[in-house]
Amino acid sequence: MAIKRLRGVLAPVVTPFTRDLAPDTKRFVRHCKWLLEHGCSGLAVFGTNSEANSLSAEERMMLLEELVQAGVPAEKLMPGTGCSALTDSVRLTAHAVKLGCAGALMLPPFYYKGVPDEGLFRNFSEVIERVADERLQVYLYHIPPVAQVPITLGLIERLLKRYPKIVAGIKDSSGDWSNTKAVLDAFAAQGFEVFAGSEVFLLRNMRAGGVGCITAGANVNPHGIDKAYKGWKTPEAEALQASIDVVRKVLQSQVSMIPALKATIAHFAADAEWMTVRPPLVELTPEQQVQMIRELGDVGFDMPGLR
Amino acid sequence: MAIKRLRGVLAPVVTPFTRDLAPDTKRFVRHCKWLLEHGCSGLAVFGTNSEANSLSAEERMMLLEELVQAGVPAEKLMPGTGCSALTDSVRLTAHAVKLGCAGALMLPPFYYKGVPDEGLFRNFSEVIERVADERLQVYLYHIPPVAQVPITLGLIERLLKRYPKIVAGIKDSSGDWSNTKAVLDAFAAQGFEVFAGSEVFLLRNMRAGGVGCITAGANVNPHGIDKAYKGWKTPEAEALQASIDVVRKVLQSQVSMIPALKATIAHFAADAEWMTVRPPLVELTPEQQVQMIRELGDVGFDMPGLR
Repeated sequence: MAIKRLRGVLAPVVTPFTRDLAPDTKRFVRHCKWLLEHGCSGLAVFGTNSEANSLSAEERMMLLEELVQAGVPAEKLMPGTGCSALTDSVRLTAHAVKLGCAGALMLPPFYYKGVPDEGLFRNFSEVIERVADERLQVYLYHIPPVAQVPITLGLIERLLKRYPKIVAGIKDSSGDWSNTKAVLDAFAAQGFEVFAGSEVFLLRNMRAGGVGCITAGANVNPHGIDKAYKGWKTPEAEALQASIDVVRKVLQSQVSMIPALKATIAHFAADAEWMTVRPPLVELTPEQQVQMIRELGDVGFDMPGLR
Repeated sequence: MAIKRLRGVLAPVVTPFTRDLAPDTKRFVRHCKWLLEHGCSGLAVFGTNSEANSLSAEERMMLLEELVQAGVPAEKLMPGTGCSALTDSVRLTAHAVKLGCAGALMLPPFYYKGVPDEGLFRNFSEVIERVADERLQVYLYHIPPVAQVPITLGLIERLLKRYPKIVAGIKDSSGDWSNTKAVLDAFAAQGFEVFAGSEVFLLRNMRAGGVGCITAGANVNPHGIDKAYKGWKTPEAEALQASIDVVRKVLQSQVSMIPALKATIAHFAADAEWMTVRPPLVELTPEQQVQMIRELGDVGFDMPGLR
């Protein structure tokens, strides 16, 4: 059975916690639905911005099941399933495929540093072989500033050659446009789908053969980013890109992006519990939140329909 | 009930895998017993050199239970229990305490980089509060070259002040003697126990008030390192230190330390299955193994009683 591949704007959905740091299913479902109604074509739940690596495998599986049971279509979901431990990656990936998810966004194993591409190839290969399901669509997750373990062009080439129907694309969060461009030039023509890891690269990515972006900013600005995505071929493309860049700039100027996203949602939803983050992250102070909201107001930002 | 603290030479025990990459309980138990019979005063199972971060929480708990059931005394065990996810750290730490382990060696959460000390303090604090067992002895694990998240002096100070009976010591794998010295100078006098993270710092650590070392090299050279440990106050101290340094130098000169340790055991146990590592690591080639064994022979190295 052919899977319909996701394109456009995907949010690595922030994970709400109750005050005692438990995953908050109710707020999670509500936010996911709001995102799909306001411009997201898909949800990359359990990404870096989801604090996914602060969640156990069981917590991730529970949240994914709750989402689907609450009516969020599995074909809109691209959960992060790449873990440090091979057996966790296999378990989460198999679980996502079984639920009917559109894809799995896979970090390389990220504890051991300086590992050879041969070891990373074996990791992805073992996951694909053990999951053994032709519906599996793997999106490689390149985020060297955080994972510190890169997905090189040579690794993509080997994986694509061995698993051409399963290795579907990449999220490039290197922050380095020359890398995204190199991936596009090398593999886009054969159907390998490239998502920019930040909306600041959206227009450039679309013009160079990419398919959209999976970006932190889509948690709060899905409507703006989707407008820029849909208008990338129009005369307004540059202006639309500029309008999302200013919002991203405010978010990115904060001490830490994830608490900033949560503080933004907390403000516009009038729901202080959204501020909560799991250690090792720390929430914004009230002063930092006030300052950020003022700056977002200055650039005309709003989150319609959230309250 | 007072816990007797471990001192001396501890091995971060390498984890054997069967050819299909499953943890190999039988070889694991046998190697742990050999280590305790040949110089190790304790076993820091599930450390970096154990490929612990390539194991799921369930696999670690299973292996720990098997060890204890096989007669390895829990009071000799200091399992690694610090994970990227808070809930995993709590679960593994509680499990280790319940089994009667002497201590828990805790990595900081290592996925998110550049996190504030406040966030790391909250992480360790949450684990200690949730485990809520006065038998818990926490050993902080400082290994910035791999974890990329440091345990700073300021963090140690806050944790010691808040949990003086629980925060027991540190393994310093920074590879930077000036850092180990600074930790010793600041906290050793109040009973904070400092283990060097490599045997090359053993003598310096003992002379400056440390209590031993937790080191990769102890997987293959426990007898040599224990001799240097026990002789640190004797006239032979420098010669004993030099004799373990040459072995470490050969091991460390390999492409990767963990496959090198496994290849050494495979050779001296005449058991090729020991070569197996989990992705993302890659085993030594036969040529690399032969070359390393020759170099170990040149410095008079042996593993008595392993076959």
